[in-house]
Amino acid sequence: MRKDQFSALSCTNLFKGIQDDEMDKLIETAPPTIRTFHKDAVMSFQGDEYNELMIILAGELSAEILNPNGKKIIIETLNKSSAVATGVLFAEDNTLPVTLKVVKEVEIALFTKKTVLKFCQMNERFLLNYMQDMGDKVIFLAEKIRLFRFKSINQKVAGYLLNLSIKQGADSVRMTYSLEHLADLFGIARPSLSRVLSEFYDQAILKKEGRIMHILDKQELEYMLEGE
Amino acid sequence: MRKDQFSALSCTNLFKGIQDDEMDKLIETAPPTIRTFHKDAVMSFQGDEYNELMIILAGELSAEILNPNGKKIIIETLNKSSAVATGVLFAEDNTLPVTLKVVKEVEIALFTKKTVLKFCQMNERFLLNYMQDMGDKVIFLAEKIRLFRFKSINQKVAGYLLNLSIKQGADSVRMTYSLEHLADLFGIARPSLSRVLSEFYDQAILKKEGRIMHILDKQELEYMLEGE
Repeated sequence: MRKDQFSALSCTNLFKGIQDDEMDKLIETAPPTIRTFHKDAVMSFQGDEYNELMIILAGELSAEILNPNGKKIIIETLNKSSAVATGVLFAEDNTLPVTLKVVKEVEIALFTKKTVLKFCQMNERFLLNYMQDMGDKVIFLAEKIRLFRFKSINQKVAGYLLNLSIKQGADSVRMTYSLEHLADLFGIARPSLSRVLSEFYDQAILKKEGRIMHILDKQELEYMLEGE
Repeated sequence: MRKDQFSALSCTNLFKGIQDDEMDKLIETAPPTIRTFHKDAVMSFQGDEYNELMIILAGELSAEILNPNGKKIIIETLNKSSAVATGVLFAEDNTLPVTLKVVKEVEIALFTKKTVLKFCQMNERFLLNYMQDMGDKVIFLAEKIRLFRFKSINQKVAGYLLNLSIKQGADSVRMTYSLEHLADLFGIARPSLSRVLSEFYDQAILKKEGRIMHILDKQELEYMLEGE
């Protein structure tokens, strides 16, 4: 395995906190298959079985959904050091819900399910990382569903922040998601989210300092949710 | 541990396929804490940290959400041999998204996160079961989100079955979820789902034989999704 491949691998969530010599040990035990795909190639189709964990070493993929009525929707873009569909790999129904298409020539590492299980048993940190990756995904999707009931972007932001404030027991909350992740959580475009946040800053409803969001006017946020 | 407690434990998803002597070995290594809660007791509040895996040995719990605007919604009922919030336990944000309240006096077994990790490393089947439980949850939530775009129950049923038909590559599909799970997936009440399914059977759009659903009139289902 080339040095840049090793380094891309070590930057994924799954190998977080694992020293190079420990990683060497894991990879020597069961080296991944490395494959390259050219631009516009379809790596796998929606409905294909997913039996080997895919980690992107270089390049870019898009995950697309084809609706039963034939419409194509791009769900997300996957970049270097992303582990693809960690949950699907172990689900009883392990068919990919998306079509994976190459945006920029990609190089990927493939680990069999058996290898992933072996890594989990060999290295407690890898096990914890894998569990956390799936746990985070569950939390993200559950929160996305909870926020569906709010119609406007204002309400989504208010509903999210008030809930965070309840959970963290404070009016100044630590933001766990990036702006990009938040937009995904709300099911909206990133510029639309930025616009609403700017308005809230201007109206002194919110104030952001680094990762901390101060809720200055809680009543105004609660007012937005009335009738919901 | 009493025999009925042991048996309730062995019936959870997480201990599926594990022989009694292997279970004995696991439980002797790190026995759970057993606790009893009376009717109407609140076992934990929405926002509480979740650090010990809860498995229900007897009785019934409800999982409720309190909205920022003060409305209470019952999300699900949890019964004997359910493992509670397997994903939250390992998420970075490991706070419970629900309040757990006792419906019928419950007895629960509590396993620390460390114990769960130990079981995963000691027993490959337990590891696989835990991974599958979380993977299934991810798939369920992702499908629930996909189905949100369909407004009517007819459309939800059509969208779900056509997708299953694409995935399984056949017009007769194997149903993986129970009626109760399906209603939860569609976010509707079970009687409403039964009513729509009955209509579809009467109109010879669908025909059910055991776990197999025959799609007799695919065009009619596709027609329901037009414009979506």
